[in-house]
Amino acid sequence: MCGRQRCFRETARASCPDPTYASKSMSLRIIPLGGLGEVGKNMTVYEAGGEVIVVDAGLAFPRDEHLGVDLVLPEMTYLSDRPGGVRAVVLTHAHEDHVGALPYLLRVAKVREVWGTRLTLGLIKSKLDEHGLMRAAELREADIGTPIELGPFRVEFVRMAHSIPDSAALAIEAEGKLVVHTGDYKLDHTPIDGQKTDVGRLAELGNRGVDLMLGDSTNAERPGVTPSERVVGEAFRQIFPLRTGRILVSSFASNVHRMQQAIDVAVDHGRKVAIVGRSMRKNANIARNLGFMEVSDGVLMKPEELRELLPGQQLILCTGSQGEPMSAMTRIAYNDHPAVSVERGDTVVISAKPVPGNELRVHDAINRLAQAGAEVLHQEIAPVHVSGHGNAEELRTIISLLRPKAVMPVHGEFRMLAAHAQLARDAGVPSSEIVLAENGSVVELTDTGPRIVDEIQAGVTYVDGLGVGDVQDVALRDRRHLSKDGVLIIVATLAPEDGVPTSRPELIARGFTGADELIEETRQEAARVIDELLAGDVSEIKLLQEHLHDAVGQLIYDRTRRRPMILPVIVEV
Amino acid sequence: MCGRQRCFRETARASCPDPTYASKSMSLRIIPLGGLGEVGKNMTVYEAGGEVIVVDAGLAFPRDEHLGVDLVLPEMTYLSDRPGGVRAVVLTHAHEDHVGALPYLLRVAKVREVWGTRLTLGLIKSKLDEHGLMRAAELREADIGTPIELGPFRVEFVRMAHSIPDSAALAIEAEGKLVVHTGDYKLDHTPIDGQKTDVGRLAELGNRGVDLMLGDSTNAERPGVTPSERVVGEAFRQIFPLRTGRILVSSFASNVHRMQQAIDVAVDHGRKVAIVGRSMRKNANIARNLGFMEVSDGVLMKPEELRELLPGQQLILCTGSQGEPMSAMTRIAYNDHPAVSVERGDTVVISAKPVPGNELRVHDAINRLAQAGAEVLHQEIAPVHVSGHGNAEELRTIISLLRPKAVMPVHGEFRMLAAHAQLARDAGVPSSEIVLAENGSVVELTDTGPRIVDEIQAGVTYVDGLGVGDVQDVALRDRRHLSKDGVLIIVATLAPEDGVPTSRPELIARGFTGADELIEETRQEAARVIDELLAGDVSEIKLLQEHLHDAVGQLIYDRTRRRPMILPVIVEV
Repeated sequence: MCGRQRCFRETARASCPDPTYASKSMSLRIIPLGGLGEVGKNMTVYEAGGEVIVVDAGLAFPRDEHLGVDLVLPEMTYLSDRPGGVRAVVLTHAHEDHVGALPYLLRVAKVREVWGTRLTLGLIKSKLDEHGLMRAAELREADIGTPIELGPFRVEFVRMAHSIPDSAALAIEAEGKLVVHTGDYKLDHTPIDGQKTDVGRLAELGNRGVDLMLGDSTNAERPGVTPSERVVGEAFRQIFPLRTGRILVSSFASNVHRMQQAIDVAVDHGRKVAIVGRSMRKNANIARNLGFMEVSDGVLMKPEELRELLPGQQLILCTGSQGEPMSAMTRIAYNDHPAVSVERGDTVVISAKPVPGNELRVHDAINRLAQAGAEVLHQEIAPVHVSGHGNAEELRTIISLLRPKAVMPVHGEFRMLAAHAQLARDAGVPSSEIVLAENGSVVELTDTGPRIVDEIQAGVTYVDGLGVGDVQDVALRDRRHLSKDGVLIIVATLAPEDGVPTSRPELIARGFTGADELIEETRQEAARVIDELLAGDVSEIKLLQEHLHDAVGQLIYDRTRRRPMILPVIVEV
Repeated sequence: MCGRQRCFRETARASCPDPTYASKSMSLRIIPLGGLGEVGKNMTVYEAGGEVIVVDAGLAFPRDEHLGVDLVLPEMTYLSDRPGGVRAVVLTHAHEDHVGALPYLLRVAKVREVWGTRLTLGLIKSKLDEHGLMRAAELREADIGTPIELGPFRVEFVRMAHSIPDSAALAIEAEGKLVVHTGDYKLDHTPIDGQKTDVGRLAELGNRGVDLMLGDSTNAERPGVTPSERVVGEAFRQIFPLRTGRILVSSFASNVHRMQQAIDVAVDHGRKVAIVGRSMRKNANIARNLGFMEVSDGVLMKPEELRELLPGQQLILCTGSQGEPMSAMTRIAYNDHPAVSVERGDTVVISAKPVPGNELRVHDAINRLAQAGAEVLHQEIAPVHVSGHGNAEELRTIISLLRPKAVMPVHGEFRMLAAHAQLARDAGVPSSEIVLAENGSVVELTDTGPRIVDEIQAGVTYVDGLGVGDVQDVALRDRRHLSKDGVLIIVATLAPEDGVPTSRPELIARGFTGADELIEETRQEAARVIDELLAGDVSEIKLLQEHLHDAVGQLIYDRTRRRPMILPVIVEV
C-alpha cells in the first residue's frame, strides 16, 4: 500500500505525488464518517477527481455512559486536515442526525457550498445564524429533479417521503458511476403534503443502471410496511372530538405534518392553537413562511393568551416528546411551566416514540401528567405515532425499483445493517456486492464493484459545555469511576527536611459513605503506610501516592466491596 | 390526631395506651411499603387485632440516577421498629420484585413464619440458604385452597397463572372483612402446566362478597388480552426446525415454562440442552426436583460438553435477556464466555422484553451477536415473548368475577394505577371506593369502605456493595454531580503563625478537562482569592474554602459552561 497518509491505493506506487493523490485517481471513494453501527451522526464523504463532497453532517445524542456530554459529533479530522477543503455539503433533510453537526464542520473545515431543498435550507439558515456562521459557506437551494454540478460530481435530488417535509434521496454521478444515497425515507403513498416518494424517478434511475445504493436501514428488521403519516391524523380525528378539556400534543419539533394534522383537526372542532417550546415555534414559523404549513389567521395564539380560553377551546402543541429535562412537556408535567398547566379532564397525546435510552424519562413525564389528572395517550396504547422510516417491505420495494448492482446499508446499528443486507441478498444482490462497512471504512467503487480498501480514523468528538473535542475518553472513564462510588481524598503533609509527617492524614469523601470506624481505620492505615515507607527510605512523592492509593483502596474494598476513586494528596511543607 | 408515633387514628384519644394501640383496634389496616408509583419492590403490610402480616417482600433494580447502587429495597423501619414483630410473611410468587427483599427483612425484623406455595418456597429456601438465614423464620408450605390461620388473619391461596409457576392470589379475611390481593397474574386459559387462573374460586369469593381488591396494574393501560404462554412455544416450533446452527434462547432465569417449551421443541428436533448462567441452572434444578419441569435423562449437558456436539445438535438456554453486564448472554455476545461462543449460522432468541431502562444494553448485545454472524430474534420482530401480566380485558374479567365493593390498584407506576382505577370505574365501582394510594399510605378498611387515614415513612433503602442503607440521597447527589463534570481539587498550604501561603495552590482534576491556560488562570485566581482574604484578615479555614469554591467555580463556569465539583483543601502547616 502507498505509505503516504490518506493515500488508499491498494498497491504502493513509487511516485505517489502528494497526499491527495488517491482522490485524484479515477476511482470514486465513499467514506462514512458516522451513522454506521449506530443511530445518529450520519455523515458520508464522497471523493472523486481530487474533490470531496459530504452528504449530511449529523450529530448524535449522548448515551448514559457519555456522562456530562451534551452532544456527540463525528470526528472530522479527515476533512479539517484536507488542504483543498470540501467542495460542497449536500443535505438530504433537516433532522438533527443529518444536519446537527454542520455548524461544527463549518468551523473546522473549509466548505465552499451547502446544498439542500427549500425547507432544509430554511431550517439550516436559522441554525447557522444562531451560531454566527451565515457567511461560513455559500448556502444554495436545490430543486428536486434539476441536477447540480459540483466539480466532478453531478447530484440530483429525488423526492422521498419522511417525517419532515422536503426530504430527498441523492443520485450521485462521478467517474462514470451512479450511486443512489437514499437518505431517510418511507414509502408513504398518502403523505400529508401529497409529496410522495418519487418511485417513478427511482425506477428511471434503476433502468439507467445504479452501481451502488447506500440505503436507510433504520427499520430493516421490522416486517411489513410503516403506516402512512395520515393514520396519525385519523387517530386525532377519533380522539379530539370526544375531549372536553385541554388537548396537548407533543412531538418532535421538526414534524411539520404532525403539527399540521393536529391543527387541522383542532380547528375543525373550534379550538385555537398555541405552540409551546422554542424549537417548535421556530420550525413552525419557518415552515409557514416557506409554504410548508398552512394555518389560517387567528388560529395561532401565544401561550400566555390561553388563559382567556376555556380548556375545551385549546390545543397546545409542544416539544418534549422524549422527556428532555428542560423541554415544554417535562416542565408542564412537573407543574413548572409559566404559561401552561394540566388538570383533570385534560388529554395529553405523546405523538412520538421514545428513542432507545429515553424510555424512563418519558415514563416519568407520563406518570406526572397522570398524577395531575390528565389522560395520557402514547404510542404503546393508541395509534398516535408512526415511524418516518420504511419497514422491510418498503426497503425491498426500493431495491426492486433501483435494482442496484451493489448495496451498502447505512443509517443504523449493526443489527439493522445486517437485516438490510439480508433483504438485498433476498432480492438477488450477490453477497460479494453487499458492503457491510463501518465508520471510517474507505469504500472504493470501480468497474468490479465496491470494495473496502482501507480505513481512516473516524471516532467521535464530544461537545461538553463550550468545549468541542477537549473531553476525551479518559475524562469519561474518570467520570464513570466517580459516579459509581464517589471519591476519597487523602491529604498527608510531610516536612521536607526530614520527610516526617507533620500531622495525621486527613480524609475527604464525596459520594462515598463509610462508617466512622472505617474512616478512622483508613486514616490509621494511611499513616501506617507513610511511616513504613519513610522508615524504608522511600520518600518519592509518586511512590508514596501509589502505595497509599493501593493500600487504602484495598482496605476500603475489603470492608465495603466499593471502589471509590482514591486520590492521595501529599503536601511537602 | 393521636400524637404517639405509629398511632394513626384520625382523632386523638386521651388514653392512647401504647405505640401499637392503633393496630389493636377493630379495624383492618393496609399499608403498602413498596410497589405503588413504581414497578418493583412490592410489599404490603396488613394489620389487624394487634398483629401484622406482610404480603411479599420485593426489591427493585436501580435506575440510572441510582449511581453505583446494586439493589433498591423498601424502607422497613415500620416493621423493624415494631416490638411485636411480624406474624408472617406471605408470598404470592417467587419473582425478585416480590421476594428479593426477604433476606433483608429477616435481618432487621422479627418474623415468625414465611408462607408460600411449593415452588415459591423451594426458590426462597435456596436464597435464604445463600444468605445464611435458613433459621431466621419458620418456612411453611401453603396448599392452594386450604386456608391458613395467622392470628386474626385467615389466608387462602388461590391459583393464578403468571410467568413463573405456582403463583397465587391471596384471599385475606380479618375483622369480618374479605380482601383479595391478586399478586401478579394473567388469564392464561392454556398455560403450559395446565394450572389456569382459578376463575371458579374467584367467582365464589365474588359471590361471598369481596370488600376490597388489591389488583396487579402492570398492563392496565394495554388494551385487549395478553397472549397465552403457549404462543411462545408455537413460535419455537416454527423457528427451531429451520435452523441448522446453534440455537440460544435467553429469558428470565425464573421462567420455568419458557425453558420447558424450548427444551421440548429442541428435543423433538434432536438437540441436547445446556443451561448457562448460575441463576438459571439453580432455578431449573429446583423446578425439576419439585416436579415443575420435566426433562428426560440424557437431554441436559454441561456447557463444557457442548464442544462434543455439532452446532445443529445444541440448544443453549441462558440468562442475560436484560443485557446485564456479567450475564451469560452478554459474555457470549462479547466473546468472553469460557464455554459458549456464537458464529455465523447460529440463532439467538431473546425471549423477554427489556425492562424500561435496559433497552440500550439489550440492543448492544443484539448488535454484538449480529456482528458475530448470528441471526437474532427478539420480541420487536418475532412472537418470541409474551407478558406475564394481564391486559385491560383480563383485569376487567377479574373485577367482574370478584365484584369487589372497593378497589385499590397496586403493582405499578402511577399511570398504570390510574388506568386500573378507570377500569374499575368502568365496571361500576364508585369513584369514592377506588383508592389511589402511595407507598406509606395507611388505608383503613371499615364498614364504610377503605379510606386513607394517615401515612408513614416508606422510603427506599439502597444496597451498595456490603452496605445496606448507609448510602443516602446526599451520596447519590454527590455521585451525580461528580459524574457530570468530574472533580477539581485545589490544594493550598498556609503557614499557621502568620497565615501566609507557603506555595502556590495546586490543582488536581479528574473527569474535568481544561486547557493549560485555564488551569493556570484558575491557579492564579485561587492564589488571588487567598491573598485578598488573608490581607482582609479572613483566615478561618471554612471561610477561605467557601470563597475559593465560589470564585473558582464561577471562573470555570464562565470559561467552559461546566460545573465540576470544586473541593478546596487548605492545609495549615
